[in-house]
Amino acid sequence: MLMTDLIAKKRDGGELSGDEIRFMIDGYVRGKISDYQMSAMCMAIYFRGMTDQETLDLTLAMMHSGDVVDLSSIKGIKADKHSTGGVGDKTSLILCPMVAACGLRVAKMSGRGLGHTGGTLDKLESFPGYNISIGEKRFLDNVNRIGIAIMGQTADLVPADKKLYALRDVTGTVPSIPLIVSSIMSKKLASGTDVIVLDVKCGSGAFMKTEAQAHELARGLTRIGKLAGRKCAAVITDMNQPLGCAVGNALEVKEAISVLRGETKGDLLELCLTLGSCLLIQAGYTEDEDTARKLLQEAIDSGRALKKLAELVEAQDGDAHDVYDTARLPLAPVQLEVPSESAGYVSHIECEKVGLISMHLGGGRAAKEDAIDLSVGLVLHKKVGDKVEMGESLATIHASTMEKAQAAANSLRACCTFSDTPVQRPQLIKDILFS
Amino acid sequence: MLMTDLIAKKRDGGELSGDEIRFMIDGYVRGKISDYQMSAMCMAIYFRGMTDQETLDLTLAMMHSGDVVDLSSIKGIKADKHSTGGVGDKTSLILCPMVAACGLRVAKMSGRGLGHTGGTLDKLESFPGYNISIGEKRFLDNVNRIGIAIMGQTADLVPADKKLYALRDVTGTVPSIPLIVSSIMSKKLASGTDVIVLDVKCGSGAFMKTEAQAHELARGLTRIGKLAGRKCAAVITDMNQPLGCAVGNALEVKEAISVLRGETKGDLLELCLTLGSCLLIQAGYTEDEDTARKLLQEAIDSGRALKKLAELVEAQDGDAHDVYDTARLPLAPVQLEVPSESAGYVSHIECEKVGLISMHLGGGRAAKEDAIDLSVGLVLHKKVGDKVEMGESLATIHASTMEKAQAAANSLRACCTFSDTPVQRPQLIKDILFS
Repeated sequence: MLMTDLIAKKRDGGELSGDEIRFMIDGYVRGKISDYQMSAMCMAIYFRGMTDQETLDLTLAMMHSGDVVDLSSIKGIKADKHSTGGVGDKTSLILCPMVAACGLRVAKMSGRGLGHTGGTLDKLESFPGYNISIGEKRFLDNVNRIGIAIMGQTADLVPADKKLYALRDVTGTVPSIPLIVSSIMSKKLASGTDVIVLDVKCGSGAFMKTEAQAHELARGLTRIGKLAGRKCAAVITDMNQPLGCAVGNALEVKEAISVLRGETKGDLLELCLTLGSCLLIQAGYTEDEDTARKLLQEAIDSGRALKKLAELVEAQDGDAHDVYDTARLPLAPVQLEVPSESAGYVSHIECEKVGLISMHLGGGRAAKEDAIDLSVGLVLHKKVGDKVEMGESLATIHASTMEKAQAAANSLRACCTFSDTPVQRPQLIKDILFS
Repeated sequence: MLMTDLIAKKRDGGELSGDEIRFMIDGYVRGKISDYQMSAMCMAIYFRGMTDQETLDLTLAMMHSGDVVDLSSIKGIKADKHSTGGVGDKTSLILCPMVAACGLRVAKMSGRGLGHTGGTLDKLESFPGYNISIGEKRFLDNVNRIGIAIMGQTADLVPADKKLYALRDVTGTVPSIPLIVSSIMSKKLASGTDVIVLDVKCGSGAFMKTEAQAHELARGLTRIGKLAGRKCAAVITDMNQPLGCAVGNALEVKEAISVLRGETKGDLLELCLTLGSCLLIQAGYTEDEDTARKLLQEAIDSGRALKKLAELVEAQDGDAHDVYDTARLPLAPVQLEVPSESAGYVSHIECEKVGLISMHLGGGRAAKEDAIDLSVGLVLHKKVGDKVEMGESLATIHASTMEKAQAAANSLRACCTFSDTPVQRPQLIKDILFS
């Protein structure tokens, strides 16, 4: 079998067989197939697409390129969640303890943030001492004991995706549905859970800019989940403005805790209830969304969800007190309000740019190896549809210096546009697909 | 400027600017742009195509990646010819001396053969002592003195094409019209001639299998020739069977000499008269094809064309006697006739396979560094449309051993199919396009 022939086959619109796809991924991971052949193949896939069978074969070949986590020692139904990445997305910090409090087993491997999007691992490290590298044994033990563990991906989880994604990133081959689907699903499948919910973000702050693209990706993800024998739902959600109000690691943790305390409602809670319902329904806890939402709300109201987060933090070498007293979390030295220079209704917030403001304050990474400042970021006081008076604060900037805070304040003002007439609030949940 | 952005632009159907194309080619030749980015770009070009302006910019950027030959010291009109590659194509050996005998200046840089197609340099080396590396000074002097020189491409002629072609060859990106056009035309333009004729082969033994593909390539080549300010004609010719009868280096030289002697007519002479007419008309010797053909025929009939070949061989360190006495050329130790096992009319000859028979006899290269045996090959006695009696010889095999000859004879028989009813001879010249 020659890679050149496989490239030509895909280029000409042919369907690659399972053997051909396994030959390709295996050869690529072993360094027997070159980057320049693989990038040509990725571009051919971009143009020709892949059938469901090809995408499944690719996903499974990638999944088996490294370790596959064995969760069979965990009793109960294992649940996982994935987001395609957004700004202010601290959903996992709320959703995971909430569904664990309802009895699901959350054995989650997470990633770090890059560019304008944050990562769950960085946020969790806002809890001093939180250990993301507890190893597989403690990971499994913790899930069995308290129902939840969140750690970093092991080095050998889907090495094919690590190598392939780095290549796609520099060869214009990221935005291909079958390649995105296989990248996401190979990791989700290798993580070994039974039920999966995927938050497919859609809008200016997301990778998928249009609802049509988000739908195509959601359909691809759920189809492959089903073909691989997992229960898999996808929720298409708005990312034309940050989710919730806080953007920045410790700030987002504080907002998540506020939701778990029942103090904060709004879009963030709504999304967590929707995603959580999908997991409970797929896990067979109930067939009814209202019932599922009541179970989840009860986990919050009773304090069990917050307690589950405290257990998680303690089980991974942090201090449970930090969950109950957020004044103990990192706090930036400078807080600066951003008075509005306009009056009216917020009609648009440039979501990706808000993410970049946090990154430039030191809260995110431009490159993978960058260090980050967990304390910085911003808290929006106004979102799309809100009425603003002249001089009213749009947001609070949390920065390491006043100079950086002022630059961020100016950038934030430039991200907001206003309308004289009332503006409809955007619809958060656009669609839900079950596999 | 980032190559990643250029790939995305082309992927999305955008038009690359001249600056972007020059950045890309310059960076690639200098090793600042990686193979994996360039292969993704080539695949995007395969799917999106290029405008005439992009193809021109690419051709010129490649042309200027290395030495550009300065032919200004040569008096008169400089002519060049290129073939897209076929089986038994010894046209240059006839055409070049013929048009030089008519007064055109032929300053030609040629290549070697690869796979089932032969190369002019290998054929010329059938003349013992023929020197393909005479250097630029002797090359120019010879053209000024005798009107003709044929040597190998200098090492630094269009290095961008050498690097890019090697990459395209292993990444499924060879069959892209703008990439083929820029590869051919960058070398033709760098060679510095005024008038160019391109023999675009079409059929089972050619790279372009269909007339539609050949037309598209011919149109691309002549358009770029015109935009670059050169006179450029393309002739689309049949390559569903070998051209002429001989396949193999010294055997093809002998056939070419026979045409120059006026002893052999048929498709080979016809093609040379057609290509030669294009050159004479473009050079302004006449506006009329009949007159052009008479001038060329007269060069043969007078012996001036044959004499010009003898001058060429002598001027490049060979012996002119070899042109007049072909018994002095390499001769294989074994000659074997191939009696037909069928009777009827030849309806089809598998052209590419005939080329491979010669290669397997030792007359061609499977890889660039292979040595070749100039004496071996085959001479067809029957071509498509010819009547064959049972036992009549289809061809003579010239081989180094009887074993190899017998294997070749069996392969050759398998290349021929027969019909009980008369078969129309294929049309050799399918179309002519002037820029």
